[in-house]
Amino acid sequence: MSGSQLESLEKTLEKHIPPDELKEVRRILFGNDTKTLELPQSAVEAASERDFELQGCAFEAGREQLRQPQVVRVGLIQNAIVLPTDVPIVEQITALHRRVGEMVEVAAMCGVNIVCFQEAWTMPFAFCTREKVPWTEFAESAEEGPTTRFCQELAKKYNMVVVSPILERDEVHGSTLWNTAVVVSNSGAVLGKTRKNHIPRVGDFNESTYYMEGNTGHRVFQTQFGRIAVNICYGRHHPLNWFMYSMNGAEIIFNPSATVGELSEPMWPIEARNAAIANHCFTCAINRVGTEHFKNEFTSADGKKAHNDFGHFYGSSYVAAPDGSRSPGLSRTRDGLLVAELDLNLNRQISDKWSFKMTGRYDLYAQELTEAVQHDFKPNIVKE
Amino acid sequence: MSGSQLESLEKTLEKHIPPDELKEVRRILFGNDTKTLELPQSAVEAASERDFELQGCAFEAGREQLRQPQVVRVGLIQNAIVLPTDVPIVEQITALHRRVGEMVEVAAMCGVNIVCFQEAWTMPFAFCTREKVPWTEFAESAEEGPTTRFCQELAKKYNMVVVSPILERDEVHGSTLWNTAVVVSNSGAVLGKTRKNHIPRVGDFNESTYYMEGNTGHRVFQTQFGRIAVNICYGRHHPLNWFMYSMNGAEIIFNPSATVGELSEPMWPIEARNAAIANHCFTCAINRVGTEHFKNEFTSADGKKAHNDFGHFYGSSYVAAPDGSRSPGLSRTRDGLLVAELDLNLNRQISDKWSFKMTGRYDLYAQELTEAVQHDFKPNIVKE
Repeated sequence: MSGSQLESLEKTLEKHIPPDELKEVRRILFGNDTKTLELPQSAVEAASERDFELQGCAFEAGREQLRQPQVVRVGLIQNAIVLPTDVPIVEQITALHRRVGEMVEVAAMCGVNIVCFQEAWTMPFAFCTREKVPWTEFAESAEEGPTTRFCQELAKKYNMVVVSPILERDEVHGSTLWNTAVVVSNSGAVLGKTRKNHIPRVGDFNESTYYMEGNTGHRVFQTQFGRIAVNICYGRHHPLNWFMYSMNGAEIIFNPSATVGELSEPMWPIEARNAAIANHCFTCAINRVGTEHFKNEFTSADGKKAHNDFGHFYGSSYVAAPDGSRSPGLSRTRDGLLVAELDLNLNRQISDKWSFKMTGRYDLYAQELTEAVQHDFKPNIVKE
Repeated sequence: MSGSQLESLEKTLEKHIPPDELKEVRRILFGNDTKTLELPQSAVEAASERDFELQGCAFEAGREQLRQPQVVRVGLIQNAIVLPTDVPIVEQITALHRRVGEMVEVAAMCGVNIVCFQEAWTMPFAFCTREKVPWTEFAESAEEGPTTRFCQELAKKYNMVVVSPILERDEVHGSTLWNTAVVVSNSGAVLGKTRKNHIPRVGDFNESTYYMEGNTGHRVFQTQFGRIAVNICYGRHHPLNWFMYSMNGAEIIFNPSATVGELSEPMWPIEARNAAIANHCFTCAINRVGTEHFKNEFTSADGKKAHNDFGHFYGSSYVAAPDGSRSPGLSRTRDGLLVAELDLNLNRQISDKWSFKMTGRYDLYAQELTEAVQHDFKPNIVKE
């Protein structure tokens, strides 16, 4: 696929556009420049040895008189699966634990306080196959599964909040499956879980045959480093989803995803960034990389021949800020760790400046929406 | 201002990036390529003589078995004011009528069915001055004012729907002012009016001292060429505003605006486009161009010296489609007419593909939002 050949949009622009014009192009496309974050040489070397991209950037806020800066470092990890999809499941999971573990170690060297992994990070994104076997065996208990235990160890070892999106097996409720993010406190305790609110019915994202819409609402997690929420994958297309996390007080909303180029890539730089602007908060969009091959071929309801992969997951993970600025994207093709330093004071500063919440007229929308969801709703249409 | 020197983002990219890479850059930034729309030579020549940019593009939809294509041509007009802001008001209005009238004539040559002008198009954007005199004299009756009569003539003459955003004087309700768009049917009849729902409190957009939040809800206008709505300026920052127009059936949502570079330019390509994606509809973002000078200096509450202008209005009007694609932007510095041919069938096709409305869980949000607007709302926060 041609889409996998461009390493990164930002690098292509830098290569070709003269500096004076590049400055304007970057301002229009990406907003105020973010600062490059100096990272320890040991981390840079470790990333190079372990063959993943390491980028650092910083979003600054103005100084205030009464509040100290609220500086937090978030780490976004994007990665390809490690082993072929047809080796024993336990080997696949163990290899991913090892790979992501060594990336988290570098995040720790970089002073990361909160790390988030990609959606369903312990497995290939096998829902495209529509097979239940063996893929549902990747599901684990959110509270006591081996992956949560692994994350608890990381959290304690590095004093880091870990957001771990997995395929969940809920033994308490009929052994059902869910698409869930487990939030582990830097103390090592499981702070809680939050489930994917919107399940796609598009392309080969055949998830609606595996699990249902989440029933955990729009909870927000108070961590030592700030209030965070997790909007999983397809939920980024729903402005109301971001909005309701924000209404519950989220200062940073993570969006762990798995999405492919042909389908969604032009929407990718738009949606999480729009959410940061509209809700006066930070958003962190994370997408896996690489192409995953499956033993059994499958069709895609598009008239094309059966095939063995879902397409190219284009990475490009990034952080967006409430002032409209954003970090560079990670690579479209390589594993990567993006370390972003955020001053959470920026949220309220931009809210005081732009006032979208104050001017939001939410009572009007509560009323109009309540009417609009009625089955006999009459749209407000003016005719001649 | 350096921002006024870059003619257009798209042209800069084309100038410097080699064709093979440009194709990928354009796909990631702008989505599927739009087709260039062939426009009559007479129109091209007229635009050149009258010194404004003319661009044409077409968004195509798949063929269906039961529905014919629903092809409509929209025209977006962006322009600078014509006369200095200190000449008599009636001269300023007349000059703008003449200027926009000659642009509409070219739109008619191009087969435009629905034209939309920029926000408060009959006047300079004088709210930055905080003076009431003489600016409130620009206000007119939406139903019977000279500008509405002028638009009715255009509509009849060219068989064109005209969306005319003006400063409204409402004699029936205490002679109050409103920021209003008048929708004139291609028959020449006033179809109705719709008011700006969200009034900014940011920078020198001092509009909240001139008029209040609109009380016309989220009405949609059924025209011969499709169902349209008008989300005026600052309303584009509010995802719920776009959303509610869409829930009432809007197929095309116009966003007539007036906004300046230092403040909002990096948000401009994001918000209307996100709205088109999220709501499975077309959106049309229109911004004025140029720098407007005022006789009396004013301050901007930013610690800087008093000055006589609001900054550079950066034009860059564009059309966004539900599939994530978008038209090129008009110039950042020149008057312009963008003619876009839309096949409205694309809206339902993309809705059937991506299903954001079906998966929207609006009943959940109606309930959560109703709770969230209560003064004693308790956010859903999980603590250790």
